[in-house]
Amino acid sequence: MDKNKILLKGMVLPMTGPKDFFARGEVAIEAGKILSVGPEGSAPQGWVPDAEYGGPDFLIMPGLINGHTHAGMTLLRSYADDLPLMEWLQEKVWPFEAKLTSDDIYWGTKLCILEMILSGTTTLVDMYFAMHKVAKAVDESGFRAVLSRGMVGTGPATELAYNQSKELIENWHGKADGRIKVMVAPHAPYTCPPDFLKRAIKLAEEYGVGINTHLAETKVEVDDITKQYGKSPIRLMEEVGLFTRPVVAAHCVHVDEQEIELLAKYKVGVIHNPESNLKLASGVSPVTRMLEAGVTVGLGTDSACSNNNLDLFGEMRSAAFLQKVSCGSTALPAYQALELATVQGAKALGLENLGQLKPGFKADVILLNMHQPHLYPRHDVVAHLVYAAHGSDVQTVIIDGNVVMENRQVLTIDSEKIMAEVQSRAEQIKERLTAGTEQS
Amino acid sequence: MDKNKILLKGMVLPMTGPKDFFARGEVAIEAGKILSVGPEGSAPQGWVPDAEYGGPDFLIMPGLINGHTHAGMTLLRSYADDLPLMEWLQEKVWPFEAKLTSDDIYWGTKLCILEMILSGTTTLVDMYFAMHKVAKAVDESGFRAVLSRGMVGTGPATELAYNQSKELIENWHGKADGRIKVMVAPHAPYTCPPDFLKRAIKLAEEYGVGINTHLAETKVEVDDITKQYGKSPIRLMEEVGLFTRPVVAAHCVHVDEQEIELLAKYKVGVIHNPESNLKLASGVSPVTRMLEAGVTVGLGTDSACSNNNLDLFGEMRSAAFLQKVSCGSTALPAYQALELATVQGAKALGLENLGQLKPGFKADVILLNMHQPHLYPRHDVVAHLVYAAHGSDVQTVIIDGNVVMENRQVLTIDSEKIMAEVQSRAEQIKERLTAGTEQS
Repeated sequence: MDKNKILLKGMVLPMTGPKDFFARGEVAIEAGKILSVGPEGSAPQGWVPDAEYGGPDFLIMPGLINGHTHAGMTLLRSYADDLPLMEWLQEKVWPFEAKLTSDDIYWGTKLCILEMILSGTTTLVDMYFAMHKVAKAVDESGFRAVLSRGMVGTGPATELAYNQSKELIENWHGKADGRIKVMVAPHAPYTCPPDFLKRAIKLAEEYGVGINTHLAETKVEVDDITKQYGKSPIRLMEEVGLFTRPVVAAHCVHVDEQEIELLAKYKVGVIHNPESNLKLASGVSPVTRMLEAGVTVGLGTDSACSNNNLDLFGEMRSAAFLQKVSCGSTALPAYQALELATVQGAKALGLENLGQLKPGFKADVILLNMHQPHLYPRHDVVAHLVYAAHGSDVQTVIIDGNVVMENRQVLTIDSEKIMAEVQSRAEQIKERLTAGTEQS
Repeated sequence: MDKNKILLKGMVLPMTGPKDFFARGEVAIEAGKILSVGPEGSAPQGWVPDAEYGGPDFLIMPGLINGHTHAGMTLLRSYADDLPLMEWLQEKVWPFEAKLTSDDIYWGTKLCILEMILSGTTTLVDMYFAMHKVAKAVDESGFRAVLSRGMVGTGPATELAYNQSKELIENWHGKADGRIKVMVAPHAPYTCPPDFLKRAIKLAEEYGVGINTHLAETKVEVDDITKQYGKSPIRLMEEVGLFTRPVVAAHCVHVDEQEIELLAKYKVGVIHNPESNLKLASGVSPVTRMLEAGVTVGLGTDSACSNNNLDLFGEMRSAAFLQKVSCGSTALPAYQALELATVQGAKALGLENLGQLKPGFKADVILLNMHQPHLYPRHDVVAHLVYAAHGSDVQTVIIDGNVVMENRQVLTIDSEKIMAEVQSRAEQIKERLTAGTEQS
């Protein structure tokens, strides 16, 4: 907070258009906002920064936006892999989750945020439970987040989830210096019957917030919903009125042409999670077609239980590669892949003044060290960012004008403490599972 | 060379079987070979090491084997992306390559090796030209390599390529303390007519070496060859007698069931290059089917011009993910993906006593620092290696018993000099291209 005025120097990729690039540029930040973006010497005359970062080998760009994750599930990383989907869920994920305390989720979320900062992500979208602890972790870390309490619309826990959603909005929407927004999260068409979806829509209306959900993730989901309701998940969502609210829909893997038109018409923000879709064998989302049809598509990792890392640089690469193998080698070119994780992600989530380096925009900025063997020669840095770079190339991270990582040292959270806590808690959870004891 | 006896401590994954793992283990190395592998305290009594590496948070495993690349093409990284295949080749890659001097290739190869060491690869398989310079780079870097002079079997350069192949074998096969092996490399069925292939086979026979080639990479190749010769590339190779020699075949994306049986029958070592196949929109190789049929499958990155990094950790991940989305979530589990890059790679290339940590085996060993946020909690380190780790997690690299990287400092090559040389040379090549001058 003491570094109110920050000057960044280096190559600048503002993500305001494919041709916008300053090989020797600078970005001035003041009071949490971008003050100026341009070539060297473009900061206002007489303006004196409190601190300066970067140099000729650094690339400055907007912080990345992870449009879909379940932060607390970072505790399950490497707990269950290479299994059939239902065995993975029923025998591993759900029993483990049933043993999680809210403090476990707090520490799992901290680990998630730590990894995200270290790999250049500055905003996350979460859907989980014990969300008051998630909000606390986000607040303390200086991170930016869209939070939502995942609600299953059947069974005994429904009312609790509904009430906690309401509380989350009341306690956290617009809080943490405006870094936290809240959405209402009916989990998915196959876990939320139409009547409950309508209640969720009403709740979102009441508080003027958006809706975060999973949609058309697997072929099985589409088949089951179609069998049960006589129409596909997306058409069902249209019918129940979900799209009367701003909606963020994760996955949209199995969508037909007409559904793509619906997603465009209702301005649904689709979040593409290529690696989770591969690992869980869900399929390849028709991102190229959606973009052509004018759908806004952001990028997400999904949880560390189905990925298993939270590195959006790798995710951009996977997204581009998958579209190429599906649609040809010119599909989803590097700049467009970068847009998914920045400007398009912000748009999909309805986050204003974010995802680009523009005067007046929120100062969520990352600096990559491009002076590394795998980023030479420097024919095209945009191609490098998508096809060769990795999250560990990120050197410095600024969120809301505050330096949260400097020279790969995260300043807002205690890395050693988090790793130790998470390891110890993961072991304790497994002990509780073996012992068959109740959640403590 | 002065550290003749080395003791490594940490978690040990010897790749000798899925159950072989020492949570607190040690590996002793002497005179370039593995002396012992086992739990803590298993090194021979009274044996005193010259140096010790690792610790409780380190994972010790065999160095990775990159079964297919074109090292000199690292100079073209980010030079040509997101283009249609023929435009990419004819308007970008080939004109650039035509301007390369043998010194350019030397420096491009050094950059390739530098990146490989930094990401845990200890053996590369190369097919390119100016191979005497490539061999020099490998020798000086302390790296291990299978080298081959790529031969196009038509046109004026054919005899030169043939003679250079011969020279390469004579000058370098078995050299550099045995770290270099040479193969004969007819480029591909579509660039080498049957008569030339027969000459190449004869050359390989004469010197008792293997053959390295590209096979069934694209649908267009299969269609063209079938049209021209009345049979598919793999059947044509059988007919001309290619499989009478030990063969390493890169790609094998478009292969039918009968061809898979042929690859198994003739013990062809297939090298899978998942990311290059995605980026160039070639397709997804049926690796799961090939493995079921008993084909030996190794892993490669292909060149940095179609990938664009040389990180085999990412490549293992992509390989596993692609098989899952094609064949289901249990396909190519983590341990099997690791096998492709280690023990199976060694087998595919006919490299004996390599790819596993076993007494008497060559001491190509890497140590990863597992004490990092994206590798917690530690439920399953094998899953971490494939689904969450990255080449930059590698801390120490030993090749042939020599420490070539310690604490991420590469000891055998000058990183700064390489990056500067490559950048300057890439710029000069582009100047020569613009000027239209001849190769100097």
